[in-house]
Amino acid sequence: MPAMEVWIEYSSTYSYLTVARIGRLAAQQGVALDWQPFFLPPVREQQGLGFPFPEASAKTAYMWRDLERRAASLGLPYRRPQTYPVNSLPSARVALAGKADGWCQRFTEEVFRLHWTQGCLIGSDDNLRQALATLGLDAAEVLERANSPANKEALKAQTPRALERGIFGAPSFVVSGELFWGDDRLEDALAWARAKG
Amino acid sequence: MPAMEVWIEYSSTYSYLTVARIGRLAAQQGVALDWQPFFLPPVREQQGLGFPFPEASAKTAYMWRDLERRAASLGLPYRRPQTYPVNSLPSARVALAGKADGWCQRFTEEVFRLHWTQGCLIGSDDNLRQALATLGLDAAEVLERANSPANKEALKAQTPRALERGIFGAPSFVVSGELFWGDDRLEDALAWARAKG
Repeated sequence: MPAMEVWIEYSSTYSYLTVARIGRLAAQQGVALDWQPFFLPPVREQQGLGFPFPEASAKTAYMWRDLERRAASLGLPYRRPQTYPVNSLPSARVALAGKADGWCQRFTEEVFRLHWTQGCLIGSDDNLRQALATLGLDAAEVLERANSPANKEALKAQTPRALERGIFGAPSFVVSGELFWGDDRLEDALAWARAKG
Repeated sequence: MPAMEVWIEYSSTYSYLTVARIGRLAAQQGVALDWQPFFLPPVREQQGLGFPFPEASAKTAYMWRDLERRAASLGLPYRRPQTYPVNSLPSARVALAGKADGWCQRFTEEVFRLHWTQGCLIGSDDNLRQALATLGLDAAEVLERANSPANKEALKAQTPRALERGIFGAPSFVVSGELFWGDDRLEDALAWARAKG
């Protein structure tokens, strides 16, 4: 079965468009997803790249309008969250902890859904607890594991792994060493996986 | 007839993908193109945005690979130019001078074709002269007009016009006040023009 790495940063806006549809598309196309939660800021810092959407810039204003249009054209529910950017570290830790147990994708989908359609912000305790409850998981047990030194180190270790792959933004997809960046390249990455994965 | 503004920066790499196909797509779809040559660096400076592709960064390495893949998937000839970025000011001035005479699009197509398929670099005298010769124009006469104080001022006046529209990169498309950025949005912009232009 062709496989694809999915590198998701939980405060990335365009990642919502990907998270909301990648599960369905990959299942339809028979591509296995290897979720790779990571924390993007140190990856960009090490490359001398700043925050891509400075407040009150034309680029950021455009990003919001583009996101709204894209969500509409993809048929995805969309409600602009009140806060940006958000603290993505807690979600990334939980997602990584859930990888071994096989619920990383469902957790990620639920976390993004709560943020982008319910106004329940990523980075809040509510968001984490509601997502874990929906998955039928014991929040106390999961959070203890997520915040363990071993799991924190595992998330930090994603930074050099991302750099090795040439990753500088999110969402990113890696298929047999080939990097695709941005929700705009999701279809191309899946096609590459089917052809060469 | 629906209409769309096309904001092209002559040193923009992704603009090649647009310039190489927009004429055909717009003609097929009955959308009139209003070419708006401009000089992007002062537009970005005024917004506090730096050069988007720093040398030797992972983002820039990705851009070249992505460009090559996209050209292949769009069926466009592609030969990576030896120099980047190039001095786009001379081409922008000539293109703007040609707008009133109706040859801005043909000139732009030829300038990009020479750069991206023949290794005849944008910013070189050769590139300008060959493009003008292909169009059957008198290079001396055109260059005198392009370098006149009035035409230089007209190109400078494109900067505030771009800022008014929220433009921060190239290629950009504007349809009835709606901004689309990037070759990835060309199809969306044309569809918007057909629906609402």
